[in-house]
Amino acid sequence: MSRQRSRPLGVATVGYAFMGKAHSQAWRSVASYFDVPAFERRVLVGRDADAVTAAAARYGWADAVTDWRTLLDRDDIDIVDICTPGWLHAEMACAFLEAGKHVLVEKPLANSMAESAAMVTTAEQAATRGVRSMVGFNYRRVPALALARDLIAQGRLGVIRQVRVSYLQDWLADATAPMTWRLRKETAGSGALGDIASHAVDQVQFLLGDTITDVSGRLHTFVPTRDGADGPEPVTVDDAAWATLSLAGGAVASVEVSRVALGRKNALTIEVYGSEGSLAFDLERLNELTFFDGTASPATQGSARVLVTEPGHPYLDAWWPPGHTIGWEHTFTHQIRDFLTAIDSGVAPSPSFAEGLGVQRVLAAVQESAAAKSSIVTVGSV
Amino acid sequence: MSRQRSRPLGVATVGYAFMGKAHSQAWRSVASYFDVPAFERRVLVGRDADAVTAAAARYGWADAVTDWRTLLDRDDIDIVDICTPGWLHAEMACAFLEAGKHVLVEKPLANSMAESAAMVTTAEQAATRGVRSMVGFNYRRVPALALARDLIAQGRLGVIRQVRVSYLQDWLADATAPMTWRLRKETAGSGALGDIASHAVDQVQFLLGDTITDVSGRLHTFVPTRDGADGPEPVTVDDAAWATLSLAGGAVASVEVSRVALGRKNALTIEVYGSEGSLAFDLERLNELTFFDGTASPATQGSARVLVTEPGHPYLDAWWPPGHTIGWEHTFTHQIRDFLTAIDSGVAPSPSFAEGLGVQRVLAAVQESAAAKSSIVTVGSV
Amino acid sequence: MSRQRSRPLGVATVGYAFMGKAHSQAWRSVASYFDVPAFERRVLVGRDADAVTAAAARYGWADAVTDWRTLLDRDDIDIVDICTPGWLHAEMACAFLEAGKHVLVEKPLANSMAESAAMVTTAEQAATRGVRSMVGFNYRRVPALALARDLIAQGRLGVIRQVRVSYLQDWLADATAPMTWRLRKETAGSGALGDIASHAVDQVQFLLGDTITDVSGRLHTFVPTRDGADGPEPVTVDDAAWATLSLAGGAVASVEVSRVALGRKNALTIEVYGSEGSLAFDLERLNELTFFDGTASPATQGSARVLVTEPGHPYLDAWWPPGHTIGWEHTFTHQIRDFLTAIDSGVAPSPSFAEGLGVQRVLAAVQESAAAKSSIVTVGSV
Amino acid sequence: MSRQRSRPLGVATVGYAFMGKAHSQAWRSVASYFDVPAFERRVLVGRDADAVTAAAARYGWADAVTDWRTLLDRDDIDIVDICTPGWLHAEMACAFLEAGKHVLVEKPLANSMAESAAMVTTAEQAATRGVRSMVGFNYRRVPALALARDLIAQGRLGVIRQVRVSYLQDWLADATAPMTWRLRKETAGSGALGDIASHAVDQVQFLLGDTITDVSGRLHTFVPTRDGADGPEPVTVDDAAWATLSLAGGAVASVEVSRVALGRKNALTIEVYGSEGSLAFDLERLNELTFFDGTASPATQGSARVLVTEPGHPYLDAWWPPGHTIGWEHTFTHQIRDFLTAIDSGVAPSPSFAEGLGVQRVLAAVQESAAAKSSIVTVGSV
Repeated sequence: MSRQRSRPLGVATVGYAFMGKAHSQAWRSVASYFDVPAFERRVLVGRDADAVTAAAARYGWADAVTDWRTLLDRDDIDIVDICTPGWLHAEMACAFLEAGKHVLVEKPLANSMAESAAMVTTAEQAATRGVRSMVGFNYRRVPALALARDLIAQGRLGVIRQVRVSYLQDWLADATAPMTWRLRKETAGSGALGDIASHAVDQVQFLLGDTITDVSGRLHTFVPTRDGADGPEPVTVDDAAWATLSLAGGAVASVEVSRVALGRKNALTIEVYGSEGSLAFDLERLNELTFFDGTASPATQGSARVLVTEPGHPYLDAWWPPGHTIGWEHTFTHQIRDFLTAIDSGVAPSPSFAEGLGVQRVLAAVQESAAAKSSIVTVGSV
Repeated sequence: MSRQRSRPLGVATVGYAFMGKAHSQAWRSVASYFDVPAFERRVLVGRDADAVTAAAARYGWADAVTDWRTLLDRDDIDIVDICTPGWLHAEMACAFLEAGKHVLVEKPLANSMAESAAMVTTAEQAATRGVRSMVGFNYRRVPALALARDLIAQGRLGVIRQVRVSYLQDWLADATAPMTWRLRKETAGSGALGDIASHAVDQVQFLLGDTITDVSGRLHTFVPTRDGADGPEPVTVDDAAWATLSLAGGAVASVEVSRVALGRKNALTIEVYGSEGSLAFDLERLNELTFFDGTASPATQGSARVLVTEPGHPYLDAWWPPGHTIGWEHTFTHQIRDFLTAIDSGVAPSPSFAEGLGVQRVLAAVQESAAAKSSIVTVGSV
Repeated sequence: MSRQRSRPLGVATVGYAFMGKAHSQAWRSVASYFDVPAFERRVLVGRDADAVTAAAARYGWADAVTDWRTLLDRDDIDIVDICTPGWLHAEMACAFLEAGKHVLVEKPLANSMAESAAMVTTAEQAATRGVRSMVGFNYRRVPALALARDLIAQGRLGVIRQVRVSYLQDWLADATAPMTWRLRKETAGSGALGDIASHAVDQVQFLLGDTITDVSGRLHTFVPTRDGADGPEPVTVDDAAWATLSLAGGAVASVEVSRVALGRKNALTIEVYGSEGSLAFDLERLNELTFFDGTASPATQGSARVLVTEPGHPYLDAWWPPGHTIGWEHTFTHQIRDFLTAIDSGVAPSPSFAEGLGVQRVLAAVQESAAAKSSIVTVGSV
Repeated sequence: MSRQRSRPLGVATVGYAFMGKAHSQAWRSVASYFDVPAFERRVLVGRDADAVTAAAARYGWADAVTDWRTLLDRDDIDIVDICTPGWLHAEMACAFLEAGKHVLVEKPLANSMAESAAMVTTAEQAATRGVRSMVGFNYRRVPALALARDLIAQGRLGVIRQVRVSYLQDWLADATAPMTWRLRKETAGSGALGDIASHAVDQVQFLLGDTITDVSGRLHTFVPTRDGADGPEPVTVDDAAWATLSLAGGAVASVEVSRVALGRKNALTIEVYGSEGSLAFDLERLNELTFFDGTASPATQGSARVLVTEPGHPYLDAWWPPGHTIGWEHTFTHQIRDFLTAIDSGVAPSPSFAEGLGVQRVLAAVQESAAAKSSIVTVGSV
């Protein structure tokens, strides 16, 4: 059901750094590839007037403003896409939802559990008025991972037993890299845990369609001191994190994330082992999914490198002929497509704020466990 | 030297099928990532009025017209991007160049040697008036291949000896796939040879900065008859082609291309072997270059998988953090960037029409050799 | 220093199943490739007279006996290689050592900590009389892993921070596979933990030349019941195990092992991340080591696939020309070579029984932690 | 049918360099893994008395002799395995066959076509008396390639269209490597062509069960002069060779071989493309076969990495559990197994001398074509 509208949806994006650039790309591209309701890129929001004006011109937004509150009363703004750091999410998202704007917010949902919970409450109230909200776990929109979820849901892997997820980067491997706000607990909340383990945890629940019930966790900071503006300063967040996770359906998952894994640039790797099949994925080769079909002819069983570029694969009919790969940025294009489609058809987009809160709860339990000598902690008990 | 202009450059694109869609993407994206002279996407040209109007809306062109000749006299059009089938290239390109428009034309330059030669003449005359032209061998703008060329030019591979290029696809592997104009010599000129061996040949000359002097070739059609509208019809172009090539500098290259290589979707693979190092590339993993450094410590010599996503790699400072891959489409974005930059700075863009003609000459020699029992043919003697 | 001997060393092996077959291969081959002291393959020991006689003929042992105690007094037996199940190790090894025979015993050292400790005591006493002992962690003799240890010891990886080891197999993935003694705690001690995590733990300590100080562990049995001779029977050992490990030198390691990881056959994978470089290994491709040199030229940094078949690589000068790979079995050939060489030169072979006990202590701590909700346990405190 | 024999077969091997070492390994190992008729390793033959005596001791031969002719009359020698350079093959093989000895001869069959033809005649006469002969294309006994042939024969790939074979090494990449007899035409016959293209050509015919009918070829010497004992000397054989091959059944194959492909150590790579499936192989990873099943479910079609270590795979029931890989050397073990089994059961072993001659004819045609500007030459017309 596509709703009749008298005019295009008006869109505003808040933030124009890394995520703002990626989201702007998605808004600029989505309608060229997908059938989505009409929309207009009306406003880019940022605190520095000159910079946001330049960014709006560069990324294709009609206008730029410095005060996000000015959007609350604008009738020509229907959707707000929040790409700011996490500590700004809760106030903005709640205000926009209450003002009747559909809201897409980058992950993590918020830096504190209290904020996240408040956002869920607000989002659920807004939903009763047809106002939609979504949290930006963009890797759900990698075609290979959407395919993986489909295969699991279809039972192609049988009963899922073991899941292994790692997310390895190396931008902090150099011990002389300087101190930043990202390495202070008071500004960043956590380190690799909140930044990249959040993706890992979301994928576990997304792929299996299941819920994590308890966790054991460990955190470690390999470079405990870094040079700040005023000399050496302690790093108060984790460089790496480990967890084992129990799922309600009986599977066990392991997660390992790091920012000091020298040689790994953006290596979100996922392996899922079931009773009938298994699969593997690496974000550095995001157009591929490896699938082992345990029911195939024994002589030729093997892990198949599936090039996820066929018209029948998720999202791919919009793109290029088989073998013509897409890039990381289009996880955002697909996210916008799904968000717009959900708004248009009046259904709740996924992942909801509640799903985002679910991920936060798991991460909080990992921190709790790490603080308690890795002892298993029940999710939601914190 | 960047030229002062009173107004943005006006751009028109002719064609909106596969290549028109890809070029439109590039025009839509390029200014968000790269510093290029100001331009406006003014006109999309196509023969079907309704279809071209819809395509213009979808791909972001301000206007649509059905007669390309109407652009010849328009002062607001400075650049024409020709994405039509090859038989239409020569007339259009020459007319636009004579009208003072900068022209980018998709490969192959033209379907006949005579047309190609005429285009080169026209382009060279236009260049004397500051009117620029370029042929669209977009794979020169794959960052990994641009890096490969740099490494070779810097001498990191020593003296180049052997080059192996294959371009394997499988969209004709199914013998029941129907007859199309692409499988008739009179409309398509040739089969895999002109379509994909042209990329292979261009890469050999591009990467080595060298010229092919003689060739031995073979062509084969594995499925000689396909069902057409009126029953079985002979396929009169090649499904696959093979060649060995001598280069002026002493290297020898082999080329193998196919449209029936079941399981290979878009596998342009390139290997270059020199006296000091070697490298390998696969278009299905276009963010990677494999480099073997023969001067490295013996115990740890090996083929290194270089993820070509670092800020210091060609084109990459415009994009995302390390490990965040880009897709096939951005070979076109980079091509437009380089074309615009060349226009702006008053230098001749590359590959020139003359380079495109050079590739055509090699392909013609392959055909000549194939018709003469693979006997070696000197390039340019046909 | 090579000792003068009046006669060849006499060798006996106990057991002729999987490990006995592999060790026999090594004894049969080692002198053809390596300069080792002279020895003769005198006796194969097994309980079934006919079967052991046939095995001796097949595997190249001069004689066969059914009672291992008859070897204790034989002057012509200098070395005993114990390939029996773990519960038989302690009695045999201690008796032979006390009788003055050099002893090689398969891993695990023994099924209980008490037995292992007794073996260490006996071995240390024997060593004072020049009687040598060694435990068979054969993967230390994979050339690629010996190279890895060398690179780490040379500082090529800088300070080691993170280690990831997994050992994944799938021979229990089929839930209808029947009950065996290996799946009962009273006969097998543990499941994947003792069988394959022992290799993982030994590698961590071997590669880093460091000691594990504390662990957090988890164990799980995915198929809790299997069909035995008398109907369904509970599986009382683990199908999979997870652990995080702290090392004295500051590194953190993770271990994950499984016998139900469908599609993985013998996948011992190891990754080591340091401040200057990293490396990766997969036992299914044991002739290769992947090395990332963080000090290489930035533009061409990448994970290099080193084919560990060069004459300068560990053990390789004995074998074939570069690129001619060796198989899994020769980890045992190298082990025998090193054992014989140590005996001959009068030095203590490694890994010693004490090192074997050290691994057992880590595994015991993992079990203890798993029983205590994964809470961190200090190694040696159990 | 296994023949009753009064005594074990007596075996002699001629030569103890690279191939003699590899064959000795096979004779030493085969009976430990496979059920073969009883045999004894009686004599190793070599020209240097001291060296051959030492080699016999090291490799496990009971005796050593310097004159191969002394074996002709010995009743205790039933089988002769000829591992000498090619120019010695014809005289020895014919003499032994005429003396009633079964003969295994290393590839190439001989250095000249005339010698090869004489060997075939002698072998065919001997066969009428039950005397067997075989040529040592050992790569037919790589399990993955034996599996590949089975899959093709079973029709799993449909109609075979395109085959790509390369064999790349780099031991001559260093231009300062000195002159040897292998680089002189009068002693070596040819370079990469005879040495490694022979394997490539044999594989094409073996895998497809088909015959090459015509060829176009090219040869090149990248390092034309090397330092000899008396100063610079011309290299008179090829460093690299290229060919395209027509097969009687309609397929087309390409072959490229090189000894200067820096970074490739022993890379015999094979790709076979059919109408229903395709496969790929790399000798540097000889325990793996990549198989693409074009009839599989479209969403999960992909090139599967089959680990050829399952009990149901060719030769593998003799070895280790799944995932425990074997090395290059066992291609020879399997070869001996098949040779002994054929002798025992009274059937003609394969590849026969006639098959070896068939390969020589193809190589001769490649040389002829290369000398005639790559013009296509019919095999057998030379």
